[in-house]
Amino acid sequence: MTTPWTERYAQRMQWVRSSAIRELLKLTEQPDVISFAGGLPAPELFPIKEFATATERVLSQHGPQALQYSTTEGYKPLREYIVRKIAAYGIKADVDNVLITSGAQQALDLIGKLLLNPGDRILTERPTYLGALQSWRAYQAEFVTVDIDDDGLQVDQLAAALSTGPKFMYILPNFQNPAGVTLSLERRLDLIDMANAYGVPIIEDDPYGELRYDGEHIPPLVVLDAERFQRGKPFEHGNVIYLGTFSKTLAPGLRLGWIVAPRRVVERSTLVKQGMDLHTSTLAQMVAYEVIQNGFLKQHVSEIRRVYKERRDLMLATMDQHFPDGIHWTRPSGGLFLWVTLPSYIKATSLLEKALERKVAFVPGDTFYPYSDQANTFRLNFSNARPEQIEKGIQRLGELLAEEIEAEHDKMVWPQPALVG
Amino acid sequence: MTTPWTERYAQRMQWVRSSAIRELLKLTEQPDVISFAGGLPAPELFPIKEFATATERVLSQHGPQALQYSTTEGYKPLREYIVRKIAAYGIKADVDNVLITSGAQQALDLIGKLLLNPGDRILTERPTYLGALQSWRAYQAEFVTVDIDDDGLQVDQLAAALSTGPKFMYILPNFQNPAGVTLSLERRLDLIDMANAYGVPIIEDDPYGELRYDGEHIPPLVVLDAERFQRGKPFEHGNVIYLGTFSKTLAPGLRLGWIVAPRRVVERSTLVKQGMDLHTSTLAQMVAYEVIQNGFLKQHVSEIRRVYKERRDLMLATMDQHFPDGIHWTRPSGGLFLWVTLPSYIKATSLLEKALERKVAFVPGDTFYPYSDQANTFRLNFSNARPEQIEKGIQRLGELLAEEIEAEHDKMVWPQPALVG
Repeated sequence: MTTPWTERYAQRMQWVRSSAIRELLKLTEQPDVISFAGGLPAPELFPIKEFATATERVLSQHGPQALQYSTTEGYKPLREYIVRKIAAYGIKADVDNVLITSGAQQALDLIGKLLLNPGDRILTERPTYLGALQSWRAYQAEFVTVDIDDDGLQVDQLAAALSTGPKFMYILPNFQNPAGVTLSLERRLDLIDMANAYGVPIIEDDPYGELRYDGEHIPPLVVLDAERFQRGKPFEHGNVIYLGTFSKTLAPGLRLGWIVAPRRVVERSTLVKQGMDLHTSTLAQMVAYEVIQNGFLKQHVSEIRRVYKERRDLMLATMDQHFPDGIHWTRPSGGLFLWVTLPSYIKATSLLEKALERKVAFVPGDTFYPYSDQANTFRLNFSNARPEQIEKGIQRLGELLAEEIEAEHDKMVWPQPALVG
Repeated sequence: MTTPWTERYAQRMQWVRSSAIRELLKLTEQPDVISFAGGLPAPELFPIKEFATATERVLSQHGPQALQYSTTEGYKPLREYIVRKIAAYGIKADVDNVLITSGAQQALDLIGKLLLNPGDRILTERPTYLGALQSWRAYQAEFVTVDIDDDGLQVDQLAAALSTGPKFMYILPNFQNPAGVTLSLERRLDLIDMANAYGVPIIEDDPYGELRYDGEHIPPLVVLDAERFQRGKPFEHGNVIYLGTFSKTLAPGLRLGWIVAPRRVVERSTLVKQGMDLHTSTLAQMVAYEVIQNGFLKQHVSEIRRVYKERRDLMLATMDQHFPDGIHWTRPSGGLFLWVTLPSYIKATSLLEKALERKVAFVPGDTFYPYSDQANTFRLNFSNARPEQIEKGIQRLGELLAEEIEAEHDKMVWPQPALVG
């Protein structure tokens, strides 16, 4: 008898990493664990009543259309809405520059399929969004990374990284996932200059841009690129593909995102998407449009900002109070996440094991590096936990960290028997 | 200045074929054209009221869950429902054998990503579903084809095709798209024997299996494989991946399909899907489950069967009456399509141009062959046209065909001047 095919194909399947961290993360979902691990919006803010009314209206007025197959590009009124919406951020696009995707995650997969050959390099921030790594590993991509600091991508490392010939750069300029940092205006300008000089396109992923809690809005890369190089028609010769989503401002359960790109790229992407899922749920698109069309989103987003700002402030204040010396963390001006750097002798994965015993959870930094590290970093989410959970959870983490640091100090003071002997 | 990247990447993009047929097919969507081109269900049968009630209930009872991120595997009650549903067809699966996909189209893309390397061969029926070709071309697959006749795949051609070493076989056993033919039981048994002997898995795509209008149900390949080879646990060592969808029985606008496969394949597929779109719309899954959970689907499908059977019968009767001699067509026992074969001197693409002038449309056969042909075949859809449109449209087509055949006969009787001179 031949070997079962499921075994023979195991090798090909092995790019799909099954990791120890993934097993640990399953434990973070236990109901008695205070989890700062997920990247979830606060469900108590979802506009449920508005969705109920909108669905009722869509089904009674356009039922057959809402349940039928539809065009791959997406529901036209929704695409037109997106054109108006991004115009507020200075992005000058036509409806033909917009393709609706099944969440921004699908946009990442689609870009991989459109552009990547096995062995191609992608330039990413380090750390970066793990879902992007997961999408592009499937195309057997390699990664070239540039470190970030509190002002985002360290552009002085860019030339060296670009000289390795990456196919594109993947940048999260606002309140980056996982680190929460924002790319400064000065660095944005350097970045688009370098991208233009090397002829390497930028994928600008902006899921959190609207969730700014303080400081001034900084123009997107796609706008800076268009202004700097006086691109003719909007996007037609631009160097930036811009990705957006309703997951953080409306509801992730709909799976609605979008690509804004040169028309030629949108046309090709549409054919690619057709092979991926034909089109994004008609019902989800029409209901989302019905909910947001009359200015609802703007007021809703300001409510989200108010709540998340409180949670961010509370998390930072509680960390200031309970985290011991020797630990660094980012102070994001928006988004959902902050990023903690530990003394190098504390590994985040073993810290998570101990944290889970105390019923508190986070995501170890390893996951966010293209090539596995024994990371002394981790990500905390502040949008999905209620204030009392934030206080309690951060306090528990602080106690654990204090014990870890103390234990290490003890080691230093009283050398281990092996060293003495 | 460097060449714009959109141009430099054009080569990589060229597997995305932009064809003359695609341009023609756009014309079929004009409102005054009677179109037998699409593969759409009849929207007048969509259970709109049931969807409205179900959505209202889901949002009021589980609103935060329905709008939130959810697990990649899919909504568990829906997966359990699918286990019960396919059990009626003899498929013995656990919930862990089921993965929800964003339409069955996503399942095809996912399988490509999981199994294909550039240059890999796939064995398909000829003709076959064009969306599958589109998905797998993106992975730079090659195709090996086996012709079909009125009993489906011509299994006597299988050995030769299998000896080229395909990675898997893609088979639509019931009321195949595009040809409408059904694989006989005898051939099914031969097929699974050969698959087992060569150790080549089968992707069994069954979107239409429930839409049988006459004749006896034939067990799916996945059931025959399990029985024949006494597979231990359901699916664990089976040779068949089974694909299903709610697009033809409930509503395609939801984008809900599923994969039934060995647990090991489902686990890997789940990780792959995570990189593709994180998960399928939570709202769509929960609403679909709410609509169908209490036995609704069964009664609804029998209503669909009743209407589509009438339309198929009417189309066949009108063709019998109005199509001239020398033309062959299939007489499907179910599904949405039938397949017309013309005399070899009539090319379907130029016929479509003439048909569009008479405001009637179909899909030329070229599209359904992996490698382009000047096909003398075309596909007709009977589910999406109302009876009066079927009569009128088929009559117009019949007249056109009669003229085409007569013109050719004239040529034969009176040779062209060039031949005389």
